[in-house]
Amino acid sequence: MTADTQIPRATAQRLPIYYYYLSSLHAAGIKRINSSEISEAIKFDAATVRRDFSYFGALGKRGFGYDVAALLNFFSKVLSQDKLNKVAVVGVGNLGQALMKYNFVHSNNIEIIMGFDSDPKKKTVQIKNEKDELLPVYAVDQLETELKKADVTIAILTVPERSAQQVTDQLVAAGVKGILNFSPIRITVPNSVRVQNVDLTTGMQTLIYFVDNFKNIKSAK
Amino acid sequence: MTADTQIPRATAQRLPIYYYYLSSLHAAGIKRINSSEISEAIKFDAATVRRDFSYFGALGKRGFGYDVAALLNFFSKVLSQDKLNKVAVVGVGNLGQALMKYNFVHSNNIEIIMGFDSDPKKKTVQIKNEKDELLPVYAVDQLETELKKADVTIAILTVPERSAQQVTDQLVAAGVKGILNFSPIRITVPNSVRVQNVDLTTGMQTLIYFVDNFKNIKSAK
Repeated sequence: MTADTQIPRATAQRLPIYYYYLSSLHAAGIKRINSSEISEAIKFDAATVRRDFSYFGALGKRGFGYDVAALLNFFSKVLSQDKLNKVAVVGVGNLGQALMKYNFVHSNNIEIIMGFDSDPKKKTVQIKNEKDELLPVYAVDQLETELKKADVTIAILTVPERSAQQVTDQLVAAGVKGILNFSPIRITVPNSVRVQNVDLTTGMQTLIYFVDNFKNIKSAK
Repeated sequence: MTADTQIPRATAQRLPIYYYYLSSLHAAGIKRINSSEISEAIKFDAATVRRDFSYFGALGKRGFGYDVAALLNFFSKVLSQDKLNKVAVVGVGNLGQALMKYNFVHSNNIEIIMGFDSDPKKKTVQIKNEKDELLPVYAVDQLETELKKADVTIAILTVPERSAQQVTDQLVAAGVKGILNFSPIRITVPNSVRVQNVDLTTGMQTLIYFVDNFKNIKSAK
């Protein structure tokens, strides 16, 4: 993959899923795998897997498949698993607190280091991460200072809908480049900032819709 | 839309986002909206919005756009907002507890009514929902009995990776038809059961990948 290679967005979104699966295989001592086996485990069709891998120059050999360690090493580099990303949680309610304690599985590159909340009482909430370290919670008006001081470039947004856009603007001003957005609104950001939406209500409504109407949904396959 | 209409999966996944946005418009007293305005607010291109709406027979009028109340009423029916879906959370750790307290915004059709955990100590955890009602937490071996008794058909799965597939099999045996899966593995279910994955690690890794490589990603537009 050269710097000029254009990867479809859908392929990029499947990358961490491949990475996670390959990590499990590697941990289990499995040395090689073919696209059908990958397809069965992660529920994308084998043609999609082969096409995705080909974007990265990873070509399986007929009758042999892919070398797990080589693929894992490659995906690890693509996903910058060697670079630590410092993360802040903005909105330290029930969900925000749970996420501050959350163990991002098979991830060596994610560390949540602080929280922010508009409620000054949240400063005294004792939140420990997986390593039993106490994480500081600051007032939202300290956001720009603290994020810049700690060189935080990724934020998890768990504030209520009414303040989501305003807090987003503050995050952008503080130099944040990526936002994992749990708020139900679609936030507006400059072109230089990436947003990944995790909308729990939408996820649940989609599930219910699929349960009620699954005979009417065209399969992705 | 007739029973035979086939809707693409991507369109179905956008439905709750349209519904949520239309609810906000309606609450704000806005009576009509065109596809460009919808596009700007929810960040899908206008052609996608028009094509999606056309699957449901909703056709905007040139120079007028769509009638908000009529669309909302229609989407509400499509999304079964009049039918209450009872939901159980399986795995009452930090994330599971936060989800039991979570307010699914603009949703009249979702009610979390109980939790399950393999740790008997979790039975005494006091978890109240948004209405200040105490929710029971049962042992996992009571799963089949309690789910059937309460007619629960939707489950939120927040158990650790190692028990995810086993608990899934128990949920399927108990008659669950839809699973919102927060566990990092891809669970295997029969064809009659729907799964919606909410993989936080993947979401975060995808975000970081997009931040690091956004010049190489083809836009969805």
